[in-house]
Amino acid sequence: MEISISRKSHFNAAHRLNVPEWTAEQNKSFFGNCNNVNYHGHNYDLIVTVTGEIDPISGYMMDMKVLSDLIKTQIEDRFDHKNLNLDTEEFKQVNPTAENIAVVIWNLLRKHIPENNHLKITLYETERNFVEYNGK
Amino acid sequence: MEISISRKSHFNAAHRLNVPEWTAEQNKSFFGNCNNVNYHGHNYDLIVTVTGEIDPISGYMMDMKVLSDLIKTQIEDRFDHKNLNLDTEEFKQVNPTAENIAVVIWNLLRKHIPENNHLKITLYETERNFVEYNGK
Amino acid sequence: MEISISRKSHFNAAHRLNVPEWTAEQNKSFFGNCNNVNYHGHNYDLIVTVTGEIDPISGYMMDMKVLSDLIKTQIEDRFDHKNLNLDTEEFKQVNPTAENIAVVIWNLLRKHIPENNHLKITLYETERNFVEYNGK
Amino acid sequence: MEISISRKSHFNAAHRLNVPEWTAEQNKSFFGNCNNVNYHGHNYDLIVTVTGEIDPISGYMMDMKVLSDLIKTQIEDRFDHKNLNLDTEEFKQVNPTAENIAVVIWNLLRKHIPENNHLKITLYETERNFVEYNGK
Amino acid sequence: MEISISRKSHFNAAHRLNVPEWTAEQNKSFFGNCNNVNYHGHNYDLIVTVTGEIDPISGYMMDMKVLSDLIKTQIEDRFDHKNLNLDTEEFKQVNPTAENIAVVIWNLLRKHIPENNHLKITLYETERNFVEYNGK
Amino acid sequence: MEISISRKSHFNAAHRLNVPEWTAEQNKSFFGNCNNVNYHGHNYDLIVTVTGEIDPISGYMMDMKVLSDLIKTQIEDRFDHKNLNLDTEEFKQVNPTAENIAVVIWNLLRKHIPENNHLKITLYETERNFVEYNGK
Repeated sequence: MEISISRKSHFNAAHRLNVPEWTAEQNKSFFGNCNNVNYHGHNYDLIVTVTGEIDPISGYMMDMKVLSDLIKTQIEDRFDHKNLNLDTEEFKQVNPTAENIAVVIWNLLRKHIPENNHLKITLYETERNFVEYNGK
Repeated sequence: MEISISRKSHFNAAHRLNVPEWTAEQNKSFFGNCNNVNYHGHNYDLIVTVTGEIDPISGYMMDMKVLSDLIKTQIEDRFDHKNLNLDTEEFKQVNPTAENIAVVIWNLLRKHIPENNHLKITLYETERNFVEYNGK
Repeated sequence: MEISISRKSHFNAAHRLNVPEWTAEQNKSFFGNCNNVNYHGHNYDLIVTVTGEIDPISGYMMDMKVLSDLIKTQIEDRFDHKNLNLDTEEFKQVNPTAENIAVVIWNLLRKHIPENNHLKITLYETERNFVEYNGK
Repeated sequence: MEISISRKSHFNAAHRLNVPEWTAEQNKSFFGNCNNVNYHGHNYDLIVTVTGEIDPISGYMMDMKVLSDLIKTQIEDRFDHKNLNLDTEEFKQVNPTAENIAVVIWNLLRKHIPENNHLKITLYETERNFVEYNGK
Repeated sequence: MEISISRKSHFNAAHRLNVPEWTAEQNKSFFGNCNNVNYHGHNYDLIVTVTGEIDPISGYMMDMKVLSDLIKTQIEDRFDHKNLNLDTEEFKQVNPTAENIAVVIWNLLRKHIPENNHLKITLYETERNFVEYNGK
Repeated sequence: MEISISRKSHFNAAHRLNVPEWTAEQNKSFFGNCNNVNYHGHNYDLIVTVTGEIDPISGYMMDMKVLSDLIKTQIEDRFDHKNLNLDTEEFKQVNPTAENIAVVIWNLLRKHIPENNHLKITLYETERNFVEYNGK
């Protein structure tokens, strides 16, 4: 019996969308006010979903406490109350769009999730904008 | 790398569920108070989800502003503060159930989304009732 | 010890904002698309708050089931799945703005709440617009 | 045209996570405070999703009222305001983890849903923890 | 300049409503299924609101981290994943209605809040039922 | 008849909490990771509440569209997608705590609201932290 378990968490961060290869005008035109040179920020809401078999003894697919701790040490401690562009290794070369943040989070968590489990990331940048990535 | 981006929006509309081929009694019996001859209404919450490849330069799958404008011009301007049965072409011949509204919205947006992208509609009629349609 | 208890409920209705003493142009100009002649609609979220002393024996200020039943019989049964302008006595002469709906609901419930208790109505017309009325 | 309709409901219940084959220490160590011998409790939020063809006449995939009544008689009446471990047949031998509750609910509803329709259960144990099961 | 700051938290607990001085029939009749002898449970959502002057140097009325820690040590550690009737001193003699829980929480926090600040408790027993208490 | 109307809106901004008169150590110790030199950010949710008499002709206390436009021009256009410390006049000398942001917003809006109406600001910095200010 395959089941998915999901854990919601969040982190607050500043970011700026910018492509170094483009001119200032191109960046301003393409990213609009998300290109603001002094950064802006978001409360990112993150849902991590892991899919796999239910253990017939414990009735757990995965211990939610283990998943919650993993999100804290791998994601929250890394990104919470940070400037994604300046304070993190992950976005030194990578434009911190919602899409790229979701892919980065997936890659950071993937190595800590058993190989035969499926991993999916849902990331809300605002209440009205969100992205989903499952490594495919 | 394939990712889904989603944008939430909403519109407020009146509607009435009714099948012209049925008698008044049949309609009343089948649709209950949703058949009220003078209409009732809803705050429809709409989530539009588009799936495709992330552009490696910009880090966008699709510009959320473009998607948001598309929803405004194609859906909100057409249905917001309208009587779906009386004020719209789309529901002159089509019963405005949540299912049919989702299909109509999918068809209205499909032609404006690149062909190799996948499109999914989630429509909340109330906080407790919603439907999902992806064109299959 | 004085405490407030609140119960959330909802009803779905169609309405149209219009002042009969004004011309069609005045109404259109003042109420915008809320003046649509064929009506539009909302999922109204209602919070009814009653304030009074906690009964020292039962530990209840008021039985939430009693309050819930009162809201059902007095408000939901009257307004749910109705056209406020056409199907209800209360809005035959009264423009169904959120403000007026809140006042009408307060008056309908007031006579069923013990006199020494305080009554407050919170009415959400949309997720972003709401009004509060307490009879003062 | 295949569409999914979903209905949200909820029930409030007490439970305790415990594996009878394990020692008290093993249970305490594995389940933490979810193993509390005197039980704790949750407001379980349940989303039932049914997928199938839209009926071309009525515009319904399934009558939401029928689905709502089914959830009430099969799930809410059985589990609401109950101690899952003590008051229900289903969890006499089954550890009431969120995963197992979702599987039990799926099995209880499956026989009442037309065979050619797909059934999915989403169960929120808290606002931040939820599971999804679709019978595969 | 007087301002209110609020912090949301939550705890999951089992409880049973019962008045020892009443007969089993009276309790069953008055409290309905909340009287279930084997308990049921809730995810209690708690909002603690403190009102006072803004410190002109720091711009804080109160450090939100201090308030959050206070709620954790005084309320969450005491009630989370507990059976309120059996596992806590506070509800050995007090019927754990939402009203009484709010009053108990107010009393537990009051002594830790500066005397010239105002304290208010909002407690959600379910998404639709909540109480407010401010010590008056 | 006095009524309150409220309008929700939001803006996304970066900020840093810092008191220039304090040493770096004092600031770090007092504000924790909110003192991050490279800023972090939030989705600020703003509720503006205006209280006054209902106009007996229109049934409006205040036109929600007028209030919504006022919030857009005075608050959103000023703070959305900005770095509060670097990009705004208001927080050049004022530490952008939630408390101070609420006071600044109240002062910006107060002059545009009729004098005999009451104005209240509710500002959510995160889903769990919010402040309320009414000018007293």
